[in-house]
Parts: sequence; C-alpha cells; structure tokens
Amino acid sequence: MFSAESISRDLKEIRTKAPLIHNITNYVVMNLTANALLALGASPVMAHAAEEVEDMTQLASALVINIGTLSQAWVEAMFKAGQAAGKRGLPVVLDPVGAGATPFRTSTARNLLESFPVAVIRGNGSEIKALVDSSTRTKGVDSLEGAESAIQAARELVEKYNCVVSISGEKDFIIGKDMVIVVENGHPLMPRVTGLGCTASALTGAFAAVNPNYVEAAAAAMAVMGICGELAAARAEGPASFELHFLDWLYRLNEEEIKAQLKFEIRS
Amino acid sequence: MFSAESISRDLKEIRTKAPLIHNITNYVVMNLTANALLALGASPVMAHAAEEVEDMTQLASALVINIGTLSQAWVEAMFKAGQAAGKRGLPVVLDPVGAGATPFRTSTARNLLESFPVAVIRGNGSEIKALVDSSTRTKGVDSLEGAESAIQAARELVEKYNCVVSISGEKDFIIGKDMVIVVENGHPLMPRVTGLGCTASALTGAFAAVNPNYVEAAAAAMAVMGICGELAAARAEGPASFELHFLDWLYRLNEEEIKAQLKFEIRS
Amino acid sequence: MFSAESISRDLKEIRTKAPLIHNITNYVVMNLTANALLALGASPVMAHAAEEVEDMTQLASALVINIGTLSQAWVEAMFKAGQAAGKRGLPVVLDPVGAGATPFRTSTARNLLESFPVAVIRGNGSEIKALVDSSTRTKGVDSLEGAESAIQAARELVEKYNCVVSISGEKDFIIGKDMVIVVENGHPLMPRVTGLGCTASALTGAFAAVNPNYVEAAAAAMAVMGICGELAAARAEGPASFELHFLDWLYRLNEEEIKAQLKFEIRS
Repeated sequence: MFSAESISRDLKEIRTKAPLIHNITNYVVMNLTANALLALGASPVMAHAAEEVEDMTQLASALVINIGTLSQAWVEAMFKAGQAAGKRGLPVVLDPVGAGATPFRTSTARNLLESFPVAVIRGNGSEIKALVDSSTRTKGVDSLEGAESAIQAARELVEKYNCVVSISGEKDFIIGKDMVIVVENGHPLMPRVTGLGCTASALTGAFAAVNPNYVEAAAAAMAVMGICGELAAARAEGPASFELHFLDWLYRLNEEEIKAQLKFEIRS
Repeated sequence: MFSAESISRDLKEIRTKAPLIHNITNYVVMNLTANALLALGASPVMAHAAEEVEDMTQLASALVINIGTLSQAWVEAMFKAGQAAGKRGLPVVLDPVGAGATPFRTSTARNLLESFPVAVIRGNGSEIKALVDSSTRTKGVDSLEGAESAIQAARELVEKYNCVVSISGEKDFIIGKDMVIVVENGHPLMPRVTGLGCTASALTGAFAAVNPNYVEAAAAAMAVMGICGELAAARAEGPASFELHFLDWLYRLNEEEIKAQLKFEIRS
Repeated sequence: MFSAESISRDLKEIRTKAPLIHNITNYVVMNLTANALLALGASPVMAHAAEEVEDMTQLASALVINIGTLSQAWVEAMFKAGQAAGKRGLPVVLDPVGAGATPFRTSTARNLLESFPVAVIRGNGSEIKALVDSSTRTKGVDSLEGAESAIQAARELVEKYNCVVSISGEKDFIIGKDMVIVVENGHPLMPRVTGLGCTASALTGAFAAVNPNYVEAAAAAMAVMGICGELAAARAEGPASFELHFLDWLYRLNEEEIKAQLKFEIRS
C-alpha cells in the first residue's frame, strides 16, 4: 500500500543496494540527474554508444530513456537499449521530452513505445497528450496543459502499452490500470530549474529498480521530488539555491520528513 | 532610449511572455544557459538535430547559435536553423566561441555570418577581432585582447552584416550602426565561471525576443549580467557560490537594483 | 621533493601562467571540470571535432582524455589529439572511465594507451585493474575494488607504458617507476558528487602542465582534491553544498591550508 512507510522502505532499499541506473538522456540534464541519483543513493551511468548500450543494460537494474536532445544516432541506441532491457525484463522509464513540439520528437517517442515494453512514461501534460493526440502542442519542453487535462490520454496509454503513466504538474497524477495516485507535494520554483522533470524520470527509474509495483514506484519518486522541493524552498532565495538545497535534501531525506510532508490521494 | 527604465520594461516583458528561446549551443554550458534563461523568465529549449531544428525555430521567439563545442553535424543544423529563422525574421544571436583558436571555428563562424541575417554577434575581444582579422589568436575560449581593441573590427562587422556587435570584457561595448553603448557593470569573478559569456549570448536572445531595437536589447542583456554579477559578488566566497547567487539574482532582479547599479555611457 | 611546499609552488605557477588545458571529456562532467580548472587558475577548453583537435592541441599545455560518454566519432578525435600531443611532447592524462563495465570501454582505453605516450593514467581501482585483467568488472562508472587492490595492475601499466598511474579511492595511490605516493586526504562525500574523479583527471592535467615530474604532479592534484574536499565537508549539508564549497576552495586554497591538511606517505 502506498504510504510514507512504503516510500521510506523503497528509499532505504535504494540506499542499501545502490542499484545501477542506465540513463540515455539529454545533454542539458546529465550532470543534474547523475547527481540526483547519487544523492538519492543509486549508482548512475550515462552511456549512449550503439557499441555498448546493450552491454551496459546487462549490468543495470533500470533503464531511463529521455529524448530531450535527441538525434538519429542516439535514437538508434535507445531502441537497442530498450530492446535489450525488454529481453531481461528490466524496468524502462521513458521521458518523451518535447513530444508535441516537433514531429521528430512526437514520432520518436511513439516509435520507442511500439518497440519494447515500458514500465513508466513520465512527462508533463502536453507531452503525455501529444503521445495520443497529434493536435496537441508543446512549447519547446514546457507544458501548455495542466496535468489533469492529460488524464484521459494517460488512460489510453496505460491500456495500450500496459504501463504506468506519471504526469507531472502542480499536482502529479500517477495512473495505473486499477489505481490513480495523486501526489500533491511540490513547489512553484521547481519548473524554474531546468531538468527537474528529467530528474523525476531518473528517480522513477531508481524506485522501479527496487519496487516492481510501478504505480507505487512512480508515485514514490514524485513524492520524494515534491517533498524535497518543499524542504528546499524553505531556504531558497531563487532557483539556484533551490536546486542546491533540493539535492542536499535528496541525500538527507528520512522517514520523519516524509511522514510530516507527504500529501496524496488515491483514486480509482 | 536605453536606461534603467527601458531595461526594466524589457525584463518585465520577458517575465510576462516567457518567450521561447531556441538554443543550439555547446555541451559545457547547456545546463547553465537553460537555467539562466529560466531564472530571467524566458523559456529555453535546446535542440540540435537536423530533423527538427526548422520545426523548433517555428515555435521560437529568438534563436541563439553558439559554436563552443562544434562538430560537423551540429554546424549543418546551425545553418538550417539560421536560414529558417531568417525566413521568419526571427532575431538570431551568434556567439563565435573560440574563433581565432582554430581555423575550423573561425571559418565556421564566418560562414554562418554569410548564410543568414544575424541580429547580434556576441563575443570576447579576440573572437570578434578574429572574425575580421585572420592573424588574431584566441587562447582556447579565453580572450587575449581587451574588448576595446576589437571596436574597429566590430564596426566593420556592423557595416558588412548590418548587425549589432556586443563585445564583452571589463567594459562591454555594444556597437550598432549609429550608436555605441558602453556597459560598465560586471565583476572580476565572472570570467572564473565557465559559460558566463555564453549566458550573456542566451540572455541577449531573450532581450532581442522582446525588443526589436537590438542595440538596446544587447546592452540590456550585458547590463543585467553585470548587475547580477556585482550583486552576486557581494556574498560570494569563490566562483561556485558566485554562480549560485548570480542565478538567484537573475530571478529576483527588479527595477530598484537596476536603477541603483546601472553604469553605462552612450557614444556615437 | 613532494611536499606542501612543492604543491603550493605548482599551484602558484598554474595561477600565474593559466596553462591552456585541452579536454576531450564526457558530457556529464564538462561543466564541472571546466569550472574546477578555472577555479584552480588554469584555462580550460573543450574541443572534440576531428577537424580541430590537432589545432587545439597545438595551443595547449596538456591534454586530458576521458572516455566517460564515448562514441566512435569522439574516439577517433581522441586518437588524433593524442598523437598530435605525442609529437609535441605534451603531457597526456587518460581517464579510462568505466573500463571494465563494457568491452567497448575497456578496448578503447587499451587502444588509446597503445597509440600515443600517456603521462598519467587516472582511474578508480576497478578501472585500473580492468586495463590489465579482462576478468575485472566495473559497476558502470563506480569501482568495485579498493584502490589498494589495483596496485599490482598499476605497476604493470607503469612498466609497460612508461607512465604514472594515479588510483583514486579512500586513499589515493600515485605510482611511478621508482616511487609511490599515498595521499590520505579526502572525504566520503566525494564519490556522492558526479564527476569528481573526472575532475581529479582534469586537475592532474593542469599540474602536469607546470611540473614535468608527473608522479609529483599527479599526487599534487590528488592532494588538492582531497584537501579541498575536507575543507568543503566542514560546511556541507549534502553533496550539492559540498560541490559548491569544493569549487570555492579550489579558488581560495593557499599554502597555509595545504600545510595544515596534507597527509601523505612515500613508499618505494
């Protein structure tokens, strides 16, 4: 059952096992997401060469694919890695960054979904809608839609790809086959730091590496993001000090703070 | 008329409209420049694939091209994006990082200038001189020349390409057809943080997105850089805490600080 | 003779001469290593295009090659740059990031070593062992071995390639033909920040640029890393504030702190 206790248990397991998370992600956020995974307790590796992605996936406990600065050679490696992960039954998190902004991004994200099993799709409202509805527009990598407006699209994706969809926004909606978790933690400074959405995807990979209930894993990642965001904001003077305190809190976060801060709702 | 009021007005407009700034920039600074644009109030997107740069440029309010870690595939995308921006009359900022250090950089920067209209060229003294004078040398990406020594070269570029040239240095010289603005804000710690020159170019894109007077836009960007640098230095213990406070100040900066700090001179 | 005085002398020379350090490194750490080199007093440049690496190497005082996010095009540039550096007698530092994790990384690192003279190989225990022993495994980019267990492998590399090997770990072992320096500075938070190993390699390049005794140069870099780590930890609340204080200390470090903190041992 999703709760402060279940999040704390997963977090403890990440810190104990330090699961290797293989990231094929964008240039903008590589440093931040590697640091966030390390702060959380996981072991990140970034590897994108066609020559090695299958080998790296063999060592990993989860694969995170993020199309934030995609190009053809990287996309080919994403297919290779995703298929290797599929054969091993490894959880794959897909972050369709900028789907809806250009046809290249939208079609790449859709093709990836058709090519191997994905455990969790994690995106903002516009990105999630664009995976289903070709008329949806995304402003670069920023959402033009609230998370709530993408719920119907998310349900279709859940059905079609047998996966979980995690929509980030003011409230985060984590949508599985029989359950929706709404995480209400977070802070307005979060979208003012580049890559916190991508960081949510990376942390989702870490939680999926230790918890095979991917609805819970995805919700735990969003809860930890939001709680660390709230704690960080208490001492931030702007987005840069916010980012610093956020990462420090990922490292320090304990059951006590999770219990005190967690706000969520379960819907059917 | 360029003034604390005009800068504040442009800044307010950036914060209200959140213009999408399309960056094709280097690996070293992508995270920093995205964060700087977000802190200022703009919406950054990084996209470099030939398959999508034209589509992304269609959504954008300005295009920033930076050759800091160029390679052939990226250069081709820069041409494509620049030409698409030219067709739409979009302001393009070119940062010729390291022109003068290698023939590849110098000739790429010159070829880009020949291929589409550029609103503002933003570089250090060595880089600007190297665009005109092939005997100029650049120490990697660091200038061997004061900004002032590049004024003559800048005037030639302004004439030849009908653009504005913004030379950063101890004093910044923003050179248009009929007007030179000298911005005297800044701090010696600024060159000790990697990518603050590139950040100046990105912010120039944001100001050009809201102010079609590109001399004023380029000067506003340099003034905001310099003022935030001075404010940040007041609490910095070294370059990393300086960078943090600098980004926080981009987010917090208001007319009050601009009025108190702005130091500039207008020359003909 | 290696001592607090020799480190301080080298550091002063870096700050006076600002040697240009040419880095062909990975996407994750480019910003951090550029900032660390700037904070130390050196002048970093990142350049990886086959079209320009030889030209850039001509301007540089050291070359740092890091295979952390390698791909074929980058590897070709590493060979070109290494050979150009070899012709000029320039010190080359090789960081075999993730050797032992995939055959692509292990074989690339070995091929680079066969192709041009390397002054210093800098890696963690698993990486160094994997260069000699194909049965060694690396967990992505994290070591599964203590530094001490790689000493024998390091001695073989020293013999075979006539180079220095610098193994980072709880204690750092810098191994030359006739001398081993064990640096005992450092802090447990260091492996929780991504890229501090890569930063050690970059700083090794800066010290090698001013001190042709590469055992001393490599040991000076590790000592400065460890001392700044200890000083940073005194005020850190987690890995992000640790990284900030670490960079600030690289900028501020003086003979006084080096004398107070340095802990090392010389073995034959």
